[in-house]
Amino acid sequence: MNKVLIIPDSFKGTLSALEVCDAVETGIRRVLPDLYIQKIPAADGGEGTVQALLTALGGEKINLWVTGPLKEPVLSFYGILPNGTAVIEMAAAAGLPLVKKEMQNPGKTTTYGVGELIADAVGRGCKNILLGLGGSCTNDFGCGAAAAMGALFYDADQKPFLPTGENLQQIASYDLTALQQKLGGVQITVICDIENPPYGKSGAAYVFAPQKGADPAMVEMLDRNLQAVSQTIQKASGIDVQQIVGGGAAGAMGAGMAVFFGAQLQSGIDAVLDAAQFEALSKGCDLIITGEGKFDDQSLSGKVCIGVARRAKAQNIPVVVLAGGVGDHIQAAYDMGICAVFSINRLPLPLSESAPMSKENLSFTAENVMRSLQIRTY
Amino acid sequence: MNKVLIIPDSFKGTLSALEVCDAVETGIRRVLPDLYIQKIPAADGGEGTVQALLTALGGEKINLWVTGPLKEPVLSFYGILPNGTAVIEMAAAAGLPLVKKEMQNPGKTTTYGVGELIADAVGRGCKNILLGLGGSCTNDFGCGAAAAMGALFYDADQKPFLPTGENLQQIASYDLTALQQKLGGVQITVICDIENPPYGKSGAAYVFAPQKGADPAMVEMLDRNLQAVSQTIQKASGIDVQQIVGGGAAGAMGAGMAVFFGAQLQSGIDAVLDAAQFEALSKGCDLIITGEGKFDDQSLSGKVCIGVARRAKAQNIPVVVLAGGVGDHIQAAYDMGICAVFSINRLPLPLSESAPMSKENLSFTAENVMRSLQIRTY
Repeated sequence: MNKVLIIPDSFKGTLSALEVCDAVETGIRRVLPDLYIQKIPAADGGEGTVQALLTALGGEKINLWVTGPLKEPVLSFYGILPNGTAVIEMAAAAGLPLVKKEMQNPGKTTTYGVGELIADAVGRGCKNILLGLGGSCTNDFGCGAAAAMGALFYDADQKPFLPTGENLQQIASYDLTALQQKLGGVQITVICDIENPPYGKSGAAYVFAPQKGADPAMVEMLDRNLQAVSQTIQKASGIDVQQIVGGGAAGAMGAGMAVFFGAQLQSGIDAVLDAAQFEALSKGCDLIITGEGKFDDQSLSGKVCIGVARRAKAQNIPVVVLAGGVGDHIQAAYDMGICAVFSINRLPLPLSESAPMSKENLSFTAENVMRSLQIRTY
Repeated sequence: MNKVLIIPDSFKGTLSALEVCDAVETGIRRVLPDLYIQKIPAADGGEGTVQALLTALGGEKINLWVTGPLKEPVLSFYGILPNGTAVIEMAAAAGLPLVKKEMQNPGKTTTYGVGELIADAVGRGCKNILLGLGGSCTNDFGCGAAAAMGALFYDADQKPFLPTGENLQQIASYDLTALQQKLGGVQITVICDIENPPYGKSGAAYVFAPQKGADPAMVEMLDRNLQAVSQTIQKASGIDVQQIVGGGAAGAMGAGMAVFFGAQLQSGIDAVLDAAQFEALSKGCDLIITGEGKFDDQSLSGKVCIGVARRAKAQNIPVVVLAGGVGDHIQAAYDMGICAVFSINRLPLPLSESAPMSKENLSFTAENVMRSLQIRTY
């Protein structure tokens, strides 16, 4: 065996994707100390995405002051990977933890700072931007980010204003000329692991605004406003944003990024695999180890393990899944490029007792998978 | 892959060795439906040993009436394997379940019926007898079994009597002439998985008599008597039975079998592997799967998994262990012929919740081990 690639999701609530990488490597090295091992923590676009990719791929971390969710200055950051792709997590400028609990209000918060991060990356010559949506405190349809890049939003009196969740419905028209000029040919890919539309019962406001501090009345108001701006956009551009899968992500910033920035929405794992140049990276690879906290029938619809497996299968590279738990009905996984699945629970213990042993359990299991692979049968 | 051998211990309290065999086979067949699979449940000499070996190896089950532990008739049985070896479990004639709880009394119970089983096997021409000690209700040093085969035990007045736990000390001399004549060249191998000596604080009475119904006073009395008969034997034969490893098994029947019958005491797994003609059976085998309920550092000192691994290693056949739980500090196992160890817990649950899933968990793990072994790395 010459080369192994480790690309796991986090084991949510137990180990970060990076910790999973390290624990798996530890196990492998007990068997093959000198093996060439590459580790890519498959970040999901949320908090930690930038650091995970920088750690895995190298690159530069840019620190800068931007406008915070309530227009206060916050020290933010993003990353530039060795291939020149900028990686931005919106949570670094519009994340829920940036607002004190008593100040949380998705009617008033803005994604303006996210636009400033994009502007900085564009200014530095980045031609591709990976934008992770996740953990936002906003519900502004991404209008703040667009405004920071030069978009103009006008009310019925043709007066420009900065729309937030509570006054999105006042947008009568908008002008993207300056934004498009500034953006040039920069391609933005939005990492988006949810499929909710911008408005309606399964939309951004109803599903996500309560955890951002909205009470039921505010949820209704926010949803109405999202619907109103959607109609304005449809009139102006012909785009039915409600049809954008994942358009409801991050207070409908998913839809806003598509409409204002021409961004592509992509599942997290595919975006990460692209950023990591998976096909080049996996060349000559004997084995890929992926994993997640719980591998079950939900995992079969496009999360990290299956996302990795699909692309590995196309390269004819075997994939083994290590998981904190394995559910029933995963047989279909074996047709999707996953060769074998192992749970890491060395002992029959509840999660509360086994969680502290997760790293060693994971190392142990990785070690024994590698040991198995040394067995030659004929 | 052409041939796999499954030789597990039971998962104590959860699955019998035979159930483990079947669950592992189920998992393997999901991957390789037509593989040649042999299953040997590694019985430990206790209840179920005969049935397990008959199921695995074929042969005949002999049913017969013998003298029960309290001299009442009981319907007992033993097995004759295809190679002519008789397999007897002492529990079938002197087992604790044969005595009602309120009648349990290791001072009065006898192994006479076990001797009758041996006599029947000898009478049918069996040249080898495998005798499993385990689950006994007796403390008679195997004197009952010896008497049934013709041994004579005399008291100080040279009066012959049938010694039981409470009057062993009355043995002043004994005569094995008739027994030895009857036994002829028959070789008896005693399966014995404990290492306790006949008497003393770690002897048969102190360690095992309480669970056979003895109160502390009776334990003391039984131990005194075991020591007395040991001295009588040493005077007569020169044998220090206290030095026989496992001599304390089954109310010191281990020692009695050695002294009266010239039997060999052997660990269960080696005896079973011999009976199964392991070396012949494993010829051409690509893989051996073994397992036990908990695989830990105690497993390293000669229990089923290591017993199997040692002999498999000599044959150069890889061994994989599947276990209900895997403890720390098992690294030494990898040098003893075990290639890889996997626990079967698909989910982080306590044993009470995972036990009902044991069969499927075991099948799942066996399936994925086989899947791993299909991976070709270079």
